[in-house]
Amino acid sequence: MADNAALAKMAQKLRRLSIESTTEAGSGHPTSCMSMAEIMSVLFFDEMRWDPRDPSGRRADIFVLSKGHAAPILWAALKESGAIDDDLMTLRRHDSRLEGHPTPLVPWVRVTTGSLGQGLSVADGMAWARKLDGEQGRVYVLMGDGEAAEGSVWEGSEFAACNKLSNVCAIIDLNRLGQSGPTMHQHHAEVYERRWQAFGWDTAVVDGHDVAALKDAFAQARRSSKPFGIVARTLKGKGVSFVEDKEGWHGKPLKKGEELTKALAELGEANITLKVEPRHYEAEPKRAEGPIEIKPAYEKGQEVATREAFGAALAKLAKSAPQTVAVDGDTKNSTFSEKFKAVAPERFAEGYIAEQNMVGIALGMSTEGKVPIASTFACFLSRAYDFIRMAVYSRPKHLVLCGSHAGVSIGEDGPSQMALEDLAMMRALVKSTVLYPSDAVCAEKCVEAAARAEGIVYIRTSRPKTPILYANDEAFPIGGSKTLRRSDKDAVTIVGAGVTLFEALTAHERLQKDGIAVRVIDLYSVQPLDADTLRRAAAETRAIITVEDHSPRGGIGEAVAAVVGGSTRLEILAVREIPRSGKPTELLEAHGISADAIVRAVRKML
Amino acid sequence: MADNAALAKMAQKLRRLSIESTTEAGSGHPTSCMSMAEIMSVLFFDEMRWDPRDPSGRRADIFVLSKGHAAPILWAALKESGAIDDDLMTLRRHDSRLEGHPTPLVPWVRVTTGSLGQGLSVADGMAWARKLDGEQGRVYVLMGDGEAAEGSVWEGSEFAACNKLSNVCAIIDLNRLGQSGPTMHQHHAEVYERRWQAFGWDTAVVDGHDVAALKDAFAQARRSSKPFGIVARTLKGKGVSFVEDKEGWHGKPLKKGEELTKALAELGEANITLKVEPRHYEAEPKRAEGPIEIKPAYEKGQEVATREAFGAALAKLAKSAPQTVAVDGDTKNSTFSEKFKAVAPERFAEGYIAEQNMVGIALGMSTEGKVPIASTFACFLSRAYDFIRMAVYSRPKHLVLCGSHAGVSIGEDGPSQMALEDLAMMRALVKSTVLYPSDAVCAEKCVEAAARAEGIVYIRTSRPKTPILYANDEAFPIGGSKTLRRSDKDAVTIVGAGVTLFEALTAHERLQKDGIAVRVIDLYSVQPLDADTLRRAAAETRAIITVEDHSPRGGIGEAVAAVVGGSTRLEILAVREIPRSGKPTELLEAHGISADAIVRAVRKML
Repeated sequence: MADNAALAKMAQKLRRLSIESTTEAGSGHPTSCMSMAEIMSVLFFDEMRWDPRDPSGRRADIFVLSKGHAAPILWAALKESGAIDDDLMTLRRHDSRLEGHPTPLVPWVRVTTGSLGQGLSVADGMAWARKLDGEQGRVYVLMGDGEAAEGSVWEGSEFAACNKLSNVCAIIDLNRLGQSGPTMHQHHAEVYERRWQAFGWDTAVVDGHDVAALKDAFAQARRSSKPFGIVARTLKGKGVSFVEDKEGWHGKPLKKGEELTKALAELGEANITLKVEPRHYEAEPKRAEGPIEIKPAYEKGQEVATREAFGAALAKLAKSAPQTVAVDGDTKNSTFSEKFKAVAPERFAEGYIAEQNMVGIALGMSTEGKVPIASTFACFLSRAYDFIRMAVYSRPKHLVLCGSHAGVSIGEDGPSQMALEDLAMMRALVKSTVLYPSDAVCAEKCVEAAARAEGIVYIRTSRPKTPILYANDEAFPIGGSKTLRRSDKDAVTIVGAGVTLFEALTAHERLQKDGIAVRVIDLYSVQPLDADTLRRAAAETRAIITVEDHSPRGGIGEAVAAVVGGSTRLEILAVREIPRSGKPTELLEAHGISADAIVRAVRKML
Repeated sequence: MADNAALAKMAQKLRRLSIESTTEAGSGHPTSCMSMAEIMSVLFFDEMRWDPRDPSGRRADIFVLSKGHAAPILWAALKESGAIDDDLMTLRRHDSRLEGHPTPLVPWVRVTTGSLGQGLSVADGMAWARKLDGEQGRVYVLMGDGEAAEGSVWEGSEFAACNKLSNVCAIIDLNRLGQSGPTMHQHHAEVYERRWQAFGWDTAVVDGHDVAALKDAFAQARRSSKPFGIVARTLKGKGVSFVEDKEGWHGKPLKKGEELTKALAELGEANITLKVEPRHYEAEPKRAEGPIEIKPAYEKGQEVATREAFGAALAKLAKSAPQTVAVDGDTKNSTFSEKFKAVAPERFAEGYIAEQNMVGIALGMSTEGKVPIASTFACFLSRAYDFIRMAVYSRPKHLVLCGSHAGVSIGEDGPSQMALEDLAMMRALVKSTVLYPSDAVCAEKCVEAAARAEGIVYIRTSRPKTPILYANDEAFPIGGSKTLRRSDKDAVTIVGAGVTLFEALTAHERLQKDGIAVRVIDLYSVQPLDADTLRRAAAETRAIITVEDHSPRGGIGEAVAAVVGGSTRLEILAVREIPRSGKPTELLEAHGISADAIVRAVRKML
């Protein structure tokens, strides 16, 4: 498209703009931008087929900046391409969309980056969805060399190779210097190349400041039938003598005045404007959609684990709603996501035992219009917490996470498999919905609600079989609760969810025999929660006892405490000691979350 | 030591015991044990130099079972070695030490395993500490092939090579079958071998059922100057025709009766007893210890960030206490752990950008008698949450984690770098201590307390400089708090920590001018917290307002709500919306945690 001299000059212009905007902001990472200027110039003004007027990325190539701290040069490239017209000198200001690390406030940014090692996984998810839809646009992901130390990069490399994602092209900006010192392998490009090859990729090593060499490598990548990795040897701070390849310049802007002037003088003028010719691929991708509506069909008296019901609901979505996709981490026969695979194997991605990548690909799929549902044991979602946190900031339209095998009620496998922190982890996210069904009807309806809801929804399922509580047509709105037992004489309110709800119901029965009435609330929607009902219960009964198969901190107990605070006495029954192997009933008793424990707590309160 | 036929027979015996104990338990993973029987037999009865009477591992080789679901064969090997005398048939019972996955209830188990892909990192930490101390004993870690999909395995491989840990020998039990289906690479041993080589290891591929071949490989490993990886091709369920190499047998015991009888018959009798000859290495390792005592020396009026004070405290520990070691994830110039490195470079491990491995190695070091202090940006500790969760179950004597750059007060870098969930994450752990200093004096004393305390202690530090509040001799016991402003007329209590404490003090001043008295409490010990002081404040003032640079869920607000619930009105000021780049002061104001916001909240309450 553009000649090499023009591209080189544009690179120089992007460098100047990165320096100027960070100096103006008084913070940022100019030297990390300078190493990748030619890569950005070649990608945006030559290699990628895209339309600067259309951020949807349909029938076009897309770009993910994994090394998010280089945001200034992304903003500069978008500005020079005509894709945005923000003032680059507003970088990092509170009133600017041009944040310190990329966020989707700028619609060209699909996912928030800045926690390193996540870009490849989300690129994989996009590329996987594109293959599914017949979208010909490729996915380019630009990484730093430092972030290749993150294991998630190798999870992402594995997934790309395993799924033959020849539409993924990753570039390592091998600038040798990390934040606090040189990287492990400095300029040894062959180390990275050998690794990618060992993970099943095609590769090229180039001088990352050589426009012609970069063009060649990208052409090679287009011809490859495998994911393609380009290791581009570069210099951090390239082009300015006093920062180039120097330690101590990470995340440091140049000072206004002499420092800035000298740097710009060394870079030389770069009066160039390049027009990006809008280019699209021919084939129109198919993005079929269908209704998300789940009708449970259980009979009272049946015993069904909520994880099984999750699987049953997934099978229904697999059939009715082609926009849904499912991913799992080699636990599909335990989470029951295998039921989705049975119906729609082409829309099921096996993530193997790599939970970070699993969440990353799900997020990537969501940016391609999918409704992704990712599942594993709830405790193993803790592995992906940074990915989940970052996904919040990516503001996905849909992202459903399901964690099975919650709490001590899993029994004999012991603490390593028991999720006791997942409610806290998911509630603490700045934006999230947390659902915790107790019976199969509610579980299926939670899946429906989650697949319809905006943003990140977490569903917590349990291992043991539990009786059906609800009629098949019962509604479970997000933010609601169910008061299962109530009378005018209720002395205490018991709030539970999941397995503990059944303990609460048993406690109710036992106490009733002794003439003690207690209210029982099913808090299936842990976040948002039904504050009105809880406050009413606080006002109408003498105390609230929460009971949860979870840590006492950050879960149901504290959620309730935060909304009823001041209006009632509250006791939190939860798992306070390190659990061990044992039968589920033994463990509920040992940790004080059994029916007996509830009865004891009620008696003590009265 | 033992002849090959005897070792093969012992393997068969270990298989029988694994089958019998899981059948008796009614759950467990016999087929995952059966694939590795020869490996265990050769390791425990031939290769490893150890003393079954001494679980300390001093002057001896040690073993980590990364594939924790194979616990039954570990228990069997320990029993047959004479290292334990538990009844194997109590496996998975609540009254037994022989849990479903290994835990340190059995003293031979140094770290709890069962969340896959963690064993290598902890082995690295042990091996690193052993090199430091001159402990000649080697570290053997046995992994499954499925878990090689976890990126953390490659982080651990990288660390081992980078630190020349020739005392690490990892074995992959390449049994081809994961939990829910075949692994990605099935029996392609060369894939794993190529990867380890690409990560700088020496390797061997062997038939994992061939005792002689295993012996050779271990001998080769001893001669290598690099970490050594053995890829052992095996069959899951080896030795029993109807389960061998068959899908659908993961995590499934054989049924009592015909199934069990047939299996044992096929394995044949294995009446053998082998004695492990106690063997020790000659060199006595040096484990120097020194006093952990930190004396801050600040002057009132100074402005020092708590992260800087953390670094200053580390430098003091580096000097006085040779049992301390520090690790960091390429953020040492931001967390200030570089100050430790400056004093004691040999006791500083650079973890590069790989937080899972960083926590894993720290845990491994703790098992060698070290007091490890691991630091990175607080938000990136979320990356290691599964490792941290598992570390709790490993019951380490000491493990200090420090997260810097807490909350929106970091400013311009934007949400990706802001920890808003770390208090929730750390509080939710079943056992943990959480400290959150506001000034440099408190920060140094928190480091002292953390390094002395048992178990996992998290210290949250902040980016901005803050004034000195306390005298250098002030004491900060874990579980305490400081009431900085108080009068008999206090209308409201404000609870803060970190940057928000200073906002609370400013609010106090402004309100005082209007004749409104408020109490101000510094909750530097977030967990355990000073319930008495908080309850007294709840009784003596009309309401409590908590203010924190964190999510409203799982942090200070809910912690306070849980202890004062019922006795007072409570309002939680916290970060409720997705933050963006901006100046720290702008962000505190925008998210309603500034002095102005506190003043407004107090006025509204009254």
